[in-house]
Amino acid sequence: MRAFGKLMPFEEALKLAMEAVKPIGRKEKLKLGEALGRVISEELISPMNVPGYTRASMDGYAFNSADTSAASEESKVSLRIKAEIFAGETDIPVLSSGETFKIATGGMIPEGADAVIPFEDIEERPDSILIDKPIEAGSCLGLEGEDMKIGDTVLKKGTLLHAGHIGAAASIGVSELECYEKPVVAIGVSGDEIAKIGESLGPGEVYDTNSYTLSAVISRSGGVAERLPIVRDSVEQIEEALSSSNADILTFTGGSSVGERDLIVDAIRNLGEVIFHGVTVKPGKPTLLGKVGDKLVLGMPGYPTSCLTVASVLLMPMIRKMSRTENNISSNLVEATLSETVTSKPGSHQVIPVKITDGYAKTVFKGSSVITSMSNADGYIEMPGGISEIKAGEKIIVTLL
Amino acid sequence: MRAFGKLMPFEEALKLAMEAVKPIGRKEKLKLGEALGRVISEELISPMNVPGYTRASMDGYAFNSADTSAASEESKVSLRIKAEIFAGETDIPVLSSGETFKIATGGMIPEGADAVIPFEDIEERPDSILIDKPIEAGSCLGLEGEDMKIGDTVLKKGTLLHAGHIGAAASIGVSELECYEKPVVAIGVSGDEIAKIGESLGPGEVYDTNSYTLSAVISRSGGVAERLPIVRDSVEQIEEALSSSNADILTFTGGSSVGERDLIVDAIRNLGEVIFHGVTVKPGKPTLLGKVGDKLVLGMPGYPTSCLTVASVLLMPMIRKMSRTENNISSNLVEATLSETVTSKPGSHQVIPVKITDGYAKTVFKGSSVITSMSNADGYIEMPGGISEIKAGEKIIVTLL
Repeated sequence: MRAFGKLMPFEEALKLAMEAVKPIGRKEKLKLGEALGRVISEELISPMNVPGYTRASMDGYAFNSADTSAASEESKVSLRIKAEIFAGETDIPVLSSGETFKIATGGMIPEGADAVIPFEDIEERPDSILIDKPIEAGSCLGLEGEDMKIGDTVLKKGTLLHAGHIGAAASIGVSELECYEKPVVAIGVSGDEIAKIGESLGPGEVYDTNSYTLSAVISRSGGVAERLPIVRDSVEQIEEALSSSNADILTFTGGSSVGERDLIVDAIRNLGEVIFHGVTVKPGKPTLLGKVGDKLVLGMPGYPTSCLTVASVLLMPMIRKMSRTENNISSNLVEATLSETVTSKPGSHQVIPVKITDGYAKTVFKGSSVITSMSNADGYIEMPGGISEIKAGEKIIVTLL
Repeated sequence: MRAFGKLMPFEEALKLAMEAVKPIGRKEKLKLGEALGRVISEELISPMNVPGYTRASMDGYAFNSADTSAASEESKVSLRIKAEIFAGETDIPVLSSGETFKIATGGMIPEGADAVIPFEDIEERPDSILIDKPIEAGSCLGLEGEDMKIGDTVLKKGTLLHAGHIGAAASIGVSELECYEKPVVAIGVSGDEIAKIGESLGPGEVYDTNSYTLSAVISRSGGVAERLPIVRDSVEQIEEALSSSNADILTFTGGSSVGERDLIVDAIRNLGEVIFHGVTVKPGKPTLLGKVGDKLVLGMPGYPTSCLTVASVLLMPMIRKMSRTENNISSNLVEATLSETVTSKPGSHQVIPVKITDGYAKTVFKGSSVITSMSNADGYIEMPGGISEIKAGEKIIVTLL
């Protein structure tokens, strides 16, 4: 019988795993409408002023501010209404002293005008307006280039794109953005007992669950899942899978422990090196990381909840580093109050699935072999090795699944 | 000149808007791999026990617990090793009293056995094992149906599907899930000054920004965006757009104010009814909601930051109700410390874009006409009408864009 050596503390395993992965350097052009949630790989510089012309920021009248310098309640200035300008009009006459143009918000300010007064601040006559105070040059104008100027950096390289970023690119007329490619994560499922969905289940067989949960985790962390054929319990088949894939990282579930048919570690040893095997994460002890050539190989336990746990706390940060989304503000954390005291064996990094109801987190762990431990959960809490108890009523951070 | 009547308080407008939208009833079948983040529209009931057989939960030896009832340190019980069972093996002999089968985790427990003892708890001889204490029936077993039983509810109707849910469906061999369709949200952009991306920009023209930011908001809130052709400033074109779309809700940007070319309200009045026009949200006052037949029409201001603000605080909750994701735990909120005091005009619902750095939120608002107000922000804070000041150093909740 083989056995694990000393288990590696989870924090150390995570550190080694994060050191082993590299951010993706490959780039691709994406249509603007497809770039939401992607990471831009170029510095986007504005080729133009936005807006490209000075415009009215209110509905009102445009005029030359000098005409109003002597205006007062007692001696109102009258300006002749000469024209009307709507947004989008381009054939705009020059404004002369003593004249005013009616103008809509966004309308281009005519040559000769340098201020706008809103409707509510004037007296309107059939052919003229009356102004009762001096108006400063620049009033109610949106100046050419006030949003962006030629040469301004619109988006910094490495930005994870949200709606506002997409809008900024649109406003300078950009139709494509160069972004980092998503890392490709291969999913290998090993085990003679694994049946594909769609096949009928023989005695002693279980359906492949892990490739589906892993696909979900991979897409949530910015990667693309690539399914490998289910490999049977043979070193040759595992080696074949390791050699044939061009994914950025290969993951296997099942066969990562120390039983006689736990062959992933043998396959990695034959072709490359094992970085760690056996980690203090609970559930999830039979976790291993290795390297075959340039390819990283992460072996995760076959039990569904153990697999999803290791995928969440170890694989997800690795993919987020590869997809360059790791330094962005994480939005899958919520605070809750623990509704019952939880304990953990000292030295193990315990991951506890919880369901959140009205701000209270309640544990729902049924067993690591059991997928309903996770399907009944909204997320999970983590108890690092140094923490052996969290008391009911304490505030905790839940990572949402 | 037309004018807004009394502005509607934002909270009241939001309430009316939420009452006006209905959750989508249409359903569609999705492949399991496509169902992540979707809302299941059926109650998923297990047709089988999971696991479908009682199995070993540890690597060890299976036997009949009655054989060990007299075992002690002084008088160890010897069991003859008769066979070896791996996970996935189906042709398993019956175990007789006095015998033991070597078994791997996940291996099917043979008829005649009712317990497993792990390797580390026995003495192994070439053809037999020695046990030094009575072992209880059921030890180290994963019982048939311990995860799910025939008839158990695996997923409740209305669940927003995460990785654990997808895994639970996979474990019962389900390849498709019936989910609610995504609501279709039409985007109409009005204004003679709007140029399409890809076209060259004439004097007095600006690129269409809002349809891109709205697409992003719609897809983030569980909807599908449908682009309408850009409509020029004509009531007929707007009416044509209103009549021709089969979307669940129509949105327009630009033309929602009270200027002479703000024609959305006229088009809605001609064909249906206006629910509100003019809201105390800042930026975003020229917002209107109407109904034409069964179709809701939301008019939003054309200024990019006003538009994205109204889309975030009003349209997004509406779509989340339609897509049935509204009651799920929201994960786009993060806590931060305000780095400067912010003030708001009493009575207006102020939305302030902020950038978060090291847990501190700093305002980045440049103006509502300016998209960089939002592209420089990570998210925004909201100051409802009753709040006129939040002091530097206070903890605030930021809604991420």
